[in-house]
Amino acid sequence: MGNKSVGKARTRVDAREKVTGLAMYADELGFSNALYAKAVRSPHAHAKIVGIDVSEARKLPGVKAIVTGRETPYLGGEALKDYAFLAAEKVRYVGEPVAAVAATLPEIAEEAVDRIKVEYQELPAIFDPVAAMETGAPLIHEGLMDYAHLPVISPVENSNICHHVQFLNGDVEKGFKESDHIFEDSFTTQIVQHAAIEPHAAVAQVDASGNITVWVTNDGPHRLRKDLAEALKIPMKKVRVIMPPYMGGGFGGKGGLKMETLCIVLAMKTGGRPVKMVLTRQEVFTASLVRHPSVVRIKTGVKKDGRLWAREIKVIYDTGAYSEKGPTVCQQGTVAATGPYKIPHVKVDGYCVYTNKIVAGAFRGYGHPQIAWPHESQMDMIAHELGLDPVKIRLMNAVEEGDVVPTGQQILHSVGLKECIQEAAAHARKNTPKRKYFGRGLACGYKNTKTPSGSSAIIKVSQDGSIELLTSAVEIGQGIKTVLTQMTAEEMGVHEEIITVSTPDTDLTPYDASTTSSRVTFHMGNAVKQAAQDARRQVFQIASRVLEVEADQLGVKDGKVYCLKDKNKSISFADVLKNHCRAGIDIVGRGSYHPQDEGVCAGPWSSPSVFWMYGAHYVELEVDVETGRVSVLKIVGAHDVGRAINPSTCEGQIEGGILQGLGSALYEEIKIGQNGRILNPSFLDYKVPTACDMPQIIPILVEVPHKEGPWGAKGIGEMTTVPTPPAIANAIYDAVGVRIKDLPITPEKILRALKQKQER
Amino acid sequence: MGNKSVGKARTRVDAREKVTGLAMYADELGFSNALYAKAVRSPHAHAKIVGIDVSEARKLPGVKAIVTGRETPYLGGEALKDYAFLAAEKVRYVGEPVAAVAATLPEIAEEAVDRIKVEYQELPAIFDPVAAMETGAPLIHEGLMDYAHLPVISPVENSNICHHVQFLNGDVEKGFKESDHIFEDSFTTQIVQHAAIEPHAAVAQVDASGNITVWVTNDGPHRLRKDLAEALKIPMKKVRVIMPPYMGGGFGGKGGLKMETLCIVLAMKTGGRPVKMVLTRQEVFTASLVRHPSVVRIKTGVKKDGRLWAREIKVIYDTGAYSEKGPTVCQQGTVAATGPYKIPHVKVDGYCVYTNKIVAGAFRGYGHPQIAWPHESQMDMIAHELGLDPVKIRLMNAVEEGDVVPTGQQILHSVGLKECIQEAAAHARKNTPKRKYFGRGLACGYKNTKTPSGSSAIIKVSQDGSIELLTSAVEIGQGIKTVLTQMTAEEMGVHEEIITVSTPDTDLTPYDASTTSSRVTFHMGNAVKQAAQDARRQVFQIASRVLEVEADQLGVKDGKVYCLKDKNKSISFADVLKNHCRAGIDIVGRGSYHPQDEGVCAGPWSSPSVFWMYGAHYVELEVDVETGRVSVLKIVGAHDVGRAINPSTCEGQIEGGILQGLGSALYEEIKIGQNGRILNPSFLDYKVPTACDMPQIIPILVEVPHKEGPWGAKGIGEMTTVPTPPAIANAIYDAVGVRIKDLPITPEKILRALKQKQER
Repeated sequence: MGNKSVGKARTRVDAREKVTGLAMYADELGFSNALYAKAVRSPHAHAKIVGIDVSEARKLPGVKAIVTGRETPYLGGEALKDYAFLAAEKVRYVGEPVAAVAATLPEIAEEAVDRIKVEYQELPAIFDPVAAMETGAPLIHEGLMDYAHLPVISPVENSNICHHVQFLNGDVEKGFKESDHIFEDSFTTQIVQHAAIEPHAAVAQVDASGNITVWVTNDGPHRLRKDLAEALKIPMKKVRVIMPPYMGGGFGGKGGLKMETLCIVLAMKTGGRPVKMVLTRQEVFTASLVRHPSVVRIKTGVKKDGRLWAREIKVIYDTGAYSEKGPTVCQQGTVAATGPYKIPHVKVDGYCVYTNKIVAGAFRGYGHPQIAWPHESQMDMIAHELGLDPVKIRLMNAVEEGDVVPTGQQILHSVGLKECIQEAAAHARKNTPKRKYFGRGLACGYKNTKTPSGSSAIIKVSQDGSIELLTSAVEIGQGIKTVLTQMTAEEMGVHEEIITVSTPDTDLTPYDASTTSSRVTFHMGNAVKQAAQDARRQVFQIASRVLEVEADQLGVKDGKVYCLKDKNKSISFADVLKNHCRAGIDIVGRGSYHPQDEGVCAGPWSSPSVFWMYGAHYVELEVDVETGRVSVLKIVGAHDVGRAINPSTCEGQIEGGILQGLGSALYEEIKIGQNGRILNPSFLDYKVPTACDMPQIIPILVEVPHKEGPWGAKGIGEMTTVPTPPAIANAIYDAVGVRIKDLPITPEKILRALKQKQER
Repeated sequence: MGNKSVGKARTRVDAREKVTGLAMYADELGFSNALYAKAVRSPHAHAKIVGIDVSEARKLPGVKAIVTGRETPYLGGEALKDYAFLAAEKVRYVGEPVAAVAATLPEIAEEAVDRIKVEYQELPAIFDPVAAMETGAPLIHEGLMDYAHLPVISPVENSNICHHVQFLNGDVEKGFKESDHIFEDSFTTQIVQHAAIEPHAAVAQVDASGNITVWVTNDGPHRLRKDLAEALKIPMKKVRVIMPPYMGGGFGGKGGLKMETLCIVLAMKTGGRPVKMVLTRQEVFTASLVRHPSVVRIKTGVKKDGRLWAREIKVIYDTGAYSEKGPTVCQQGTVAATGPYKIPHVKVDGYCVYTNKIVAGAFRGYGHPQIAWPHESQMDMIAHELGLDPVKIRLMNAVEEGDVVPTGQQILHSVGLKECIQEAAAHARKNTPKRKYFGRGLACGYKNTKTPSGSSAIIKVSQDGSIELLTSAVEIGQGIKTVLTQMTAEEMGVHEEIITVSTPDTDLTPYDASTTSSRVTFHMGNAVKQAAQDARRQVFQIASRVLEVEADQLGVKDGKVYCLKDKNKSISFADVLKNHCRAGIDIVGRGSYHPQDEGVCAGPWSSPSVFWMYGAHYVELEVDVETGRVSVLKIVGAHDVGRAINPSTCEGQIEGGILQGLGSALYEEIKIGQNGRILNPSFLDYKVPTACDMPQIIPILVEVPHKEGPWGAKGIGEMTTVPTPPAIANAIYDAVGVRIKDLPITPEKILRALKQKQER
């Protein structure tokens, strides 16, 4: 039954808008009478705020509102509520907002910001997460234990550790004793920025009854609504979050609470005038969000045949000045830190640690790039040491259908890991080309999804058969509007052209947890499928009466309901709606999905996952030993997507994920100076790969259907970026025999390592 | 069960926004990069368009688009599709748009309009509807018979009659023969304007895929969407109508197709830039909509005891240059033209006639003010002639529960007419005050509602128990948001404060036929009640599991679900949603209503009505016989509302309706010059009553519950304005013995009549 839409490569429904430049982004939304906001930002990494003098700023004509932290005692956050809208007693990183101004022109707001005098008393700052964990380190959040937090989060008293989690399985000491080889290494990852082309922008308006409307690009409109309501201690009904029609890239950087909080506290003082704030590129770099840098110690016991036997890991996620998504990033990364391998004895400790740096938040991969880097680098080191083929050792240890997650949480289902490894490796050139320093590398991984989480959808069928899908899924660039269109068309039995997919508006579009964690195709897909079934059932009920055929004897295709036994006996959706005594009423179908399995529903952010994604990347590159420059020639990305709803957007995800992985492997790094100031806050100094840096990319879709996924589908978005850095590092080792353990792999590090190797 | 909200007087939920001036109207919506539209309008009442030269206008910098009628061959209309977006071959009234310009500034658009040269060839124009009906009258729409129309509409070939309808019951000739007295009179009503404070405004934007978004104040967003899609011959999914947050008065004047059509055809040429048009006050007066002026011939046969025995009526509704709502106004008014009386023999002919005047459309009362004026004036003439009390003759003839509508359509239910008459009359002063020319008058009436028509509603319950009601009901000033809030609170068992009511957006809010015909409390009320029940049932299902009590053993109050047998055993909505394994998912309840009774569902705009409203007005006034000036002292308005959901807004409707009735009785009239030009297109020259003109008003709510109405409620909005003019005329007759049959009752007319009376 239904139209054949699922599984077909489709042009994105928003393609025309984007290529013509008509797509409208947050900064382009029009507001009459808007005010423009600018923030006063801390020049210190850690300092007490002694006083703020706004008197000179207030004198400036056009300044309509000024707020400081002490007036705005709101604490927000999803997992741990430590995020101050504005710093009140002290600042914790360079760039933290301490006051904000709304004025009739951005230039006036800027001038007012310059006139605000803040007196600070500097405090010892700490930038290194390992040092921050030491006893006696300066405390960044003295009130840590007073912050509200989710039950799953465990802050450590009198420390900078805002979350510590431990997973144990088997007996790791025994495991090491039984091992033939022990490997112990340390790895680090750097700070990287999401580098979305669209800067962060928000507009807030507060009405006469104190109802707040926020227009902002956020990957979780309903989550933001809840976070804001909780922080402001008002009912959710008083907060409305409206997404702009388009979003210019997110990758996790547009989640959480950000500058919309400043717009809100200013808008509370502007007598109903909307307050708009658009971050400058420098502000995006210095005061939005970054990926958690990490320090990982990994110790692995291996049997001589290559079987992994015991693994102990300590992962430190450096969350910067505020926890933001840090505790849950830590939770999600730590549970998967052993890698997708059968290991009987496991001990993993994850720490989320404050430092006086820019806040780290969600970033495509959510804690997994930090743990795949060590386990996949070390896997090749083990293979090399044992004289085993890197592909074979992975296949030998790879988890399979029915295996338990190494950290012990749940039994795995829909496990396409081996297929991914084999498909990626199959693309290896048979012969080494005639290049002197040519290398091949492979890495794999798996990633969980936030569980349990829920999605709702509503489908409206109008009088002429036009269909509107109401969903809070965010079109973040990934193509979800196209995928949900295909799903609706398939399940309703209509043409895709007749379907409109909404942009989220928390007052109008039903709940969705967030467009994160690669969860939307799976969760929202299920909700949409249900809603479509529900709507179709109602159409069938009416058609059954008109055609005088039992509803279970009906089929649907191309928007026509027909009798299964006599296809000439049919009626169109439009005819059903227009002419059969419903007085113009639309049909409303609804659906909602959340995982039902109690095993994965232990509680929000508990460790089980309703599905796991698997992927493997194979890399070919060459190294210029004179300059240390790496030229990546080819990357093959094989990913288990369960079922590709739109193969074209799945391939797009793989291409984009690999590009982002390539950037963090070789080029990107936010550099912090001694005083805590970011040294390269621009695209001139922060190097993201461009089209010129792109190697040949071969995306491969592996389909191991998930029993609970819509049409078998799982997620794909995040996993695509996880294996690239270790695959590149492994290929570099293959090319020139040096092992780099600290990202990014710069020419300098390669040259230094080559030199050290020569010296040995 | 439930909270006690229904039946309680409540402050309007939007009161704070309105009194603080923060409420945002269409003209205040912000759009970046907007263009401004102005129209070239016809100076002739009837003329062929020979040519249009836009070349000079095109040269003007800042002009971005120009359209003319021949480029835009779109015909729209709800009942009869004769409405050209822009005049193409000929113009049919002074003020009709023939071309439109979009420019970067309104001033540039204005200048461009001045530069457009249109060559006309004048045609004979016709302004009098009676003359327009004569054979050989100049045809205003030569292609009348080619226009698409609803089955119920009957245009007359080779004429200016776009709809003729006849209702017969009994044998009118026999009836007249059996009558003791025959009364035969002619009455007319004038052109009046809705005079909403907010002028008409619209913005349209067309995206790269040709999808149209229109922001416009319209009392039927879904109807407008359908009308536009049909006119443009595109699927409804390509049209989205978004209502601005507030609407500054409608009264029917903001229905139909208006200047948003110009914005759309311009926006098709602006490469995605939105096009905004705000009518000037002069344009509102000359080129928006007015109430149909009418000419009514009424012949009544009466038994000597006062029983009405036969009635023959010919009603002519003058719809101006285009049919707009004319055919259905004619249909609705004609069916009720005999008045709310038992009359065995009836013949009614209704005609909707084109003339070369401004287009007439919906106006509070929808054809009924035109028919109540004659039947209620004549009723007093009959009473006077027969020496009967005007109250008693009405009570003697008044329809009652179970009676058939005089024109024969259906059996009446929920008939509070007698109560209204008695309640209104009960307020008569016992003694005539010592004023020389003091008079009392009474009039009554009934009004139907568009049937069948449908409404849908969706209720979303969020995690903390906040409730959003998705509805396309338009807050037109009548207080519907407050009423629907009360209904939701009552049925869900929650506090009103926790409820948000949406503003319509056809992509997101479910179907509603229109906010017209006094239908929304009844129809949408039923849909909302169902949606609330549906949502509550789902909350109970979960609560039943948590409380371990059968769902039918649960009650709800103040947002808490409790066990009927043990009220201490309870759980809040928030707790249900947040903590009981739904992973944050909201609950979605849905409801939809349309009349089920086949008797009233014969087809759209067929004559039966799912409910009838009844009302009676009692007036006290004095007449200054020197000047002819009437001072209205008191008006009592008693209305059968079925059940008052919010007595306060019901009383507001009565006050507003009476004010509007007073205006059309005494002051208001659009005057048309010999060449068809409107002579008084401003509030300086067109006199609406002000606060100073307001008499004491005593609103009385009669409650005769309707079995199908939500909590028994029916509509009220329109009926409140219907009886005022005849009640005033009857009181004037009572005061000074002159009978004015042509509205408005100006001092000149009174003086002239007094003079004629003296002369007799």
